[in-house]
Amino acid sequence: MSILTRMFPNAFNLFDLYEKQIGYAVEAATYFRKTVSEGTLSKESLDKIHDLEHQGDEVAHEIIEQLNKTFITPFDREDIHKLAKEIDDIVDMINTLTGRLLLYKLTKVNKNLVEFSQMIEESVVSVERVIKCMRNTKDKTLVKDACVEVNRLENAGDALRDKALTELFDTEKDPIAVIKWKEIYQEAETILDICEDVAHVVENIIVKQV
Amino acid sequence: MSILTRMFPNAFNLFDLYEKQIGYAVEAATYFRKTVSEGTLSKESLDKIHDLEHQGDEVAHEIIEQLNKTFITPFDREDIHKLAKEIDDIVDMINTLTGRLLLYKLTKVNKNLVEFSQMIEESVVSVERVIKCMRNTKDKTLVKDACVEVNRLENAGDALRDKALTELFDTEKDPIAVIKWKEIYQEAETILDICEDVAHVVENIIVKQV
Amino acid sequence: MSILTRMFPNAFNLFDLYEKQIGYAVEAATYFRKTVSEGTLSKESLDKIHDLEHQGDEVAHEIIEQLNKTFITPFDREDIHKLAKEIDDIVDMINTLTGRLLLYKLTKVNKNLVEFSQMIEESVVSVERVIKCMRNTKDKTLVKDACVEVNRLENAGDALRDKALTELFDTEKDPIAVIKWKEIYQEAETILDICEDVAHVVENIIVKQV
Repeated sequence: MSILTRMFPNAFNLFDLYEKQIGYAVEAATYFRKTVSEGTLSKESLDKIHDLEHQGDEVAHEIIEQLNKTFITPFDREDIHKLAKEIDDIVDMINTLTGRLLLYKLTKVNKNLVEFSQMIEESVVSVERVIKCMRNTKDKTLVKDACVEVNRLENAGDALRDKALTELFDTEKDPIAVIKWKEIYQEAETILDICEDVAHVVENIIVKQV
Repeated sequence: MSILTRMFPNAFNLFDLYEKQIGYAVEAATYFRKTVSEGTLSKESLDKIHDLEHQGDEVAHEIIEQLNKTFITPFDREDIHKLAKEIDDIVDMINTLTGRLLLYKLTKVNKNLVEFSQMIEESVVSVERVIKCMRNTKDKTLVKDACVEVNRLENAGDALRDKALTELFDTEKDPIAVIKWKEIYQEAETILDICEDVAHVVENIIVKQV
Repeated sequence: MSILTRMFPNAFNLFDLYEKQIGYAVEAATYFRKTVSEGTLSKESLDKIHDLEHQGDEVAHEIIEQLNKTFITPFDREDIHKLAKEIDDIVDMINTLTGRLLLYKLTKVNKNLVEFSQMIEESVVSVERVIKCMRNTKDKTLVKDACVEVNRLENAGDALRDKALTELFDTEKDPIAVIKWKEIYQEAETILDICEDVAHVVENIIVKQV
């Protein structure tokens, strides 16, 4: 048991809720990667991701509601709030990106986007690892390693976005296609930014407990 | 009298100030809707909205100034600050959007934008209702209803933006026009997002008081 | 000695760290202005600015780390965190803008961008002045004057962006060039926004000390 669980044995099941919430994000990221890689993006895919977003959102609301009823919390109220909000942002952005691809009718396989979708899945899975560490903060190496991985993927995402944009501006002559793909690549990279933000929030929470 | 006004009878007139500030936002939203619906957007419209933004900004400054001089506040200092900032963001964004329409010379009546301007006005009016509830938090139903309405309008705004963008990419062949309108629709939708943020901040303040 | 340094003589060297951090931002802004004005932007310029960003980032990390180890701080922990983060944002955005200019192959001298780069340098230098005032908060006029200057430059930046965009949409017929320059001008203006944010954070910190 970590110092957190020892001190707040009866605190509301915050760790369970966060793990549930990030679970939906992992599911959305995996599904997104699969659909994008197979070129099977459709209205149904959007519904499915929207549904996962909605379920995650309900968990976030439960966290906030319980927070408002709890006097003593295992860590900063503000941090609790921020973390729920930012995990929500991950699925929100995957949902936005999926909607945009559909709206722009960009459903064929695109190798840069496939690469992005793989990075996003890896990053969300690493964020899940970071979040699972909150329950037991004894092994600092695990947290550190997962955070390093999320940072690495964010940098790799920057590089991929730049490579994809360079290719786009070098080869695509249709300005409308440029407008569309530019937005897609930038939004895909934003998901990796949000994952990094989430990892930082958790890292900071854990550091403060020491 | 709510618990807030009973406990802080001499606290600075925070509720008056917020109501004054959101009043300018309502005025700006109504004026924007009117101008856009009549196709009369001009340099004078921009001046008028800019003026309202400036007046709202002064109220926000007064809130912060009084906050810094007050030791005991009716609710979280952070929340007081955040709320003043976010109400400011509403008018700021209406001002930005107006400026952009003028800069892009998009002053003729556009049915999607007219629809947006109506939603924005409705949403800002609902936000005003939420803010007026802060003074007397006894009737939770009123707050809840107004917040539900703001959320509904935010969802309707998302749908309208997607519809407008689909139309734009399907019918507009001039890439420069696509660039302009894409930005306009996205900014219009952002105003509804900000209204939702404001409603959430107030809802959260009220919940904490219970 | 200000009230801050008198009360926290042994507090960690927060003022030194902030001055070091903003120093890297000034260096980046000066270098950016020079390169853009001479039309000598290259891969090396990007490396150089990226390097400054990295050094500033390390100072930001040092601030957070020391913050987490310190029980009593000269001002709000939250403000300390926010300030380090926002100074970081300045150099981050100069780095992003430089990368984008290179990616878009926009390395020739552009008079609007030269003007932006001068404003950015002036603004970052004014922010440095504001930050240096934190160490000795006795002379409020100095802080006020520097903040007024940062605000003035932010407004001038808005006007310059609007002028530059108007010219762009009036004269540039290549949609791809419009896409590129629109983004560049908007990002350049964002740096002035961030400078204003930093000045506000410091102003607020100083006001609270009185």
